[in-house]
Amino acid sequence: MANSAAHLSPQNVRGLVDSIEAFIFDCDGVIWKGYKLIDGVSQTLDMLRSKGKKLVFVTNNSSRSRRQFAEKFESLGISVSEDEIFSSSFAAAMYLKINKFPSEKKVYVIGGEGILEELQLAGYSGLGGPEDGKKIAEWKQNCFFEHDKNVGAVVVGIDPYINYYKLQYATLCIRENPGCLFIATNRDSVGHMTELQEWPGAGCMVAAVCGSTEKEPIVVGKPSTFLMDFLLQRFNISPSKMCMVGDRLDTDILFGQNAGCKTLLVLSGVTTESTLQDPSNNIQPDYYTGKLSDVLELLDA
Amino acid sequence: MANSAAHLSPQNVRGLVDSIEAFIFDCDGVIWKGYKLIDGVSQTLDMLRSKGKKLVFVTNNSSRSRRQFAEKFESLGISVSEDEIFSSSFAAAMYLKINKFPSEKKVYVIGGEGILEELQLAGYSGLGGPEDGKKIAEWKQNCFFEHDKNVGAVVVGIDPYINYYKLQYATLCIRENPGCLFIATNRDSVGHMTELQEWPGAGCMVAAVCGSTEKEPIVVGKPSTFLMDFLLQRFNISPSKMCMVGDRLDTDILFGQNAGCKTLLVLSGVTTESTLQDPSNNIQPDYYTGKLSDVLELLDA
Repeated sequence: MANSAAHLSPQNVRGLVDSIEAFIFDCDGVIWKGYKLIDGVSQTLDMLRSKGKKLVFVTNNSSRSRRQFAEKFESLGISVSEDEIFSSSFAAAMYLKINKFPSEKKVYVIGGEGILEELQLAGYSGLGGPEDGKKIAEWKQNCFFEHDKNVGAVVVGIDPYINYYKLQYATLCIRENPGCLFIATNRDSVGHMTELQEWPGAGCMVAAVCGSTEKEPIVVGKPSTFLMDFLLQRFNISPSKMCMVGDRLDTDILFGQNAGCKTLLVLSGVTTESTLQDPSNNIQPDYYTGKLSDVLELLDA
Repeated sequence: MANSAAHLSPQNVRGLVDSIEAFIFDCDGVIWKGYKLIDGVSQTLDMLRSKGKKLVFVTNNSSRSRRQFAEKFESLGISVSEDEIFSSSFAAAMYLKINKFPSEKKVYVIGGEGILEELQLAGYSGLGGPEDGKKIAEWKQNCFFEHDKNVGAVVVGIDPYINYYKLQYATLCIRENPGCLFIATNRDSVGHMTELQEWPGAGCMVAAVCGSTEKEPIVVGKPSTFLMDFLLQRFNISPSKMCMVGDRLDTDILFGQNAGCKTLLVLSGVTTESTLQDPSNNIQPDYYTGKLSDVLELLDA
């Protein structure tokens, strides 16, 4: 049984902030909800930067590339550079690169433009994605569904244009192309894709492909340690001086804990205080608080 | 470890046929592949009927109702009555009926017309299905995705028009409507939906909903015993005098074995002889043969 989380307070906030060199933030439910910035986030990030803290944004949302995420931050009035962003779309491309996936092989994508852009930046040619969103696969007599035998990896992320064509394409690649990799950007069941409610996440599309292929994917997003290993290698900071801030126990907090970071749960996303305190929950962050800007308010208190 | 299967032969075929009062047939891969009847099926069924055998057709394919399956048989030149057909679309409706699902509650359907027709025949009002195949769910700012709070059950079957709208609708019903049932017609990973190749089966759509809801469904099709219990109650025949004939080990053969029936695997569908003989396979039918009409040929030999 894990120790229970400490409520962030005027007494413990300074010790936390002083001990941390880099804050790693989840985005959805921490920085924003859908298209709306969460109150006080901008001022809190400014304060942390003014104290010389390194800020890193790690998101399981694969629908955008790092460049597109930087644009989203910009549109919300926050200045973040591409180098500070680690999205699961980027992680998928980096996984292939680190594992020396041959550049002459192709990658079939269930997901958004962000995955295709990151694949291209890494030197790979992707197919599928948005382009296949309007394609139809029908059970017609004497009709044979062709797929590219040169696809050596299938990447599955969140896809609001999921359809049977894409599912059949991915299934044929994984089942019939020898050694074809099956990579999941992440397996979040749902996410706050809009401010007002939750929507099926990549976990939904990934499960569909597991269901048809009877195979399990390689997961590159949180809580897998792949992104963290990559991140630790890039920044030269000890995990004990990093704090993972997230709204999900089973991805964000677990991700931070797996790497030996401090962890702070915010209740501005999918996790409620009662879920956190429920006896069935065995993931306990070091600290928890209502929303990110509490850090600023408590420091000022 | 199960005993290994006996190859059907001139020596054992008569003993099998004589000992059986009712043959239960899977359809896809046994009777037909996609839109094409498998060679010799018609003559074999005629021969069995002429010997006074009861014939029953049990299919996990939920895309059609019993009426629509009878039409398909007719179009292929085989006369089968609706009473002889047990489809997983029918099973879903019967599950609700037997469990006294209130008729004033609604049922949301991911799947085909067949499920909606069987629900209606059982006195239930379904929504979703083909009607929602062209609907689009987009992540728009300030837009709230509404769902019917009166939906008390979600039925998921094979759906070539699966989309994000249906997945969000089903997910909201299961997550937010208190006590909402999650029923899977079946969980076949793939099926010979066309003669030339396999396609993602209901297992793909069911897994997608498991992925977004983090819930497991009630399965009414094979290999669950629900349909067999229903079938045994309708016909007054001892299971030991019934023989399940199918092409899938993990649905058909397991289904027959779970009920105490004799089992005959045919290799005209998804299972190859090497899969059957593989040491990792622990489902062994009593008998196996290439295709259904071997029964006729071996009896004549």
